[in-house]
Formats: sequence, structure tokens, C-alpha cells
Amino acid sequence: MKAAQTTLQKKIHQSMPLSLAMGYQIVELDDLHIIVEAPLQPNINIHGTAFAGSIYSVGVLSAWALVYHVILKQGLDADLVISRAVIEYLSPVHGTIRCNCRLEIDQMQRFIDELVVSRRSRIEAVVNIGERPDAELLLGLHASLKK
Amino acid sequence: MKAAQTTLQKKIHQSMPLSLAMGYQIVELDDLHIIVEAPLQPNINIHGTAFAGSIYSVGVLSAWALVYHVILKQGLDADLVISRAVIEYLSPVHGTIRCNCRLEIDQMQRFIDELVVSRRSRIEAVVNIGERPDAELLLGLHASLKK
Repeated sequence: MKAAQTTLQKKIHQSMPLSLAMGYQIVELDDLHIIVEAPLQPNINIHGTAFAGSIYSVGVLSAWALVYHVILKQGLDADLVISRAVIEYLSPVHGTIRCNCRLEIDQMQRFIDELVVSRRSRIEAVVNIGERPDAELLLGLHASLKK
Repeated sequence: MKAAQTTLQKKIHQSMPLSLAMGYQIVELDDLHIIVEAPLQPNINIHGTAFAGSIYSVGVLSAWALVYHVILKQGLDADLVISRAVIEYLSPVHGTIRCNCRLEIDQMQRFIDELVVSRRSRIEAVVNIGERPDAELLLGLHASLKK
């Protein structure tokens, strides 16, 4: 799993310069769960806490990376995009931005089954930022198989 | 107005390094309207279009900058934060990320009146990204007067 994690992080860093600018790192990755982090300093705002846009972006790149990883593990090749998102900021993030995203096995299986049958599929993911959490992100992701 | 625009952009660049990394620029600013842009290249994603997180972040920094500008124009000094956001991605952004945010005069006046009376106030802002638009962002912003 460590190899998949390293490959995926490298792919994200190489294809998305903002991930590097934010200091995006995949800390843990398994087939239903991911933890990613980004340090405060490159993501700091005018209040000395984490910028709302960075919190959102690191959150997006947790769910996106997890679902992308699952698609690859199935031997599939698909475009995966964000279609819709809702975020609530509950308290300021004073240090590292740490995002936690977990999917249910049934939910993931339905997503993959639909992708194989219809060539398109949709999944919703919840990302918690911080322990309390400090922010909650709900994302809709769309996948479509490449030809 | 051009001086206010330059000062505000400089303040954002200096206090939020990610705004510089994204190439954030204020293109137009008046008391009810702002246009901001960021070039594609530093914000590109794995598909060769603009990263969902960059679209969101540049959008946040349009509404935030406009409302912050209005607060300053009233001679007030307040902390301004994002409390909640909903974004819909309608079509890929193939070039410059261009965000347009306009507030109604009544809405802005109510926001300022409440801030003066209660020391706290809330405003909702809609940001259109691109002409069609390619994405729509609805933001809730909270202001609280500094002591």
C-alpha cells in the first residue's frame, strides 16, 4: 500500500502544482480510508490560521485521491471530477490541516459496479478536517470511464 | 478606487501566500462589485483544466475581498471569515479562472448597519466563475468588529 500511496502522491504533485504549493502529503491510505495533511505556513491567512480555500482544497484532494486509488485498484481507467461541494467551517485551524475521509464498503462497491455497467458513476464523500472537526466537507464526485 | 484595489491586492498577497501561488489578481473593484482572475497554469489539474480547489479559492477571495473593502470604506475594522459555502461545478474551466461577485446595495447596507449595531454581522454572496457560468459559488461570510 505504501507504494500506491507514494505513486499517487507523486502523480498529484506532478500534475497539480497547487498541491505542491500547499505542501499536500498523503499520510495514510488504504482501500476505504485516507488521511492527508498540509502544513499551516504556506496555507496561512490574514488571521494567522488556515485559509478557507486551502482547507477546502486539501479536503478535496483527500476524497479525490481515495476514490481515484479505488478506481485504479479495480484495474479501471476513469476521469474523476468534483461536481458539487458543501463546506461548513466550525472553528479556526491553528496548525496543520489534517483531513480524514472514510468510505463504506457497500457504498464503494455500488460506485464501482455502476461504473463498470454504465461507464459513469457518482459517489458522495464526507471529509472531516481536524479532530473536533474544525470543518466538514461533503463532496459529490463523478467518474467516467475513458475509452 | 484603483489605489484601494492595489492596496487590497498587496495585503492579500502579503498575508496569504497561496494567493500568490495561484496568481490571484483583482481586475476590477468598486463598492458593490469585484472581478478577480487567476491564470490556468499554476492552477491546472490532472485533466489540463482548472483544479476544483483553485476555482473555489479564487472565488472565495473575490467575495472576501469585496466585503472586506466595503468594511474598510465605512471606516470599520473587522475580522471577516467564511462560515459556509456551496459550490456547483457546471463545466470545466479551460483557461483563466475569472470570478465575478456583485452585491445589492440594500443587502450591503443591512450588513453594515447590523455590524455597527451588534458588532457582528453576516452576509451571503454569490460568485459566478466564467461567463456561462462554469461554476457557481454561494458563500456565507461573518464579520465581527475588532475591539
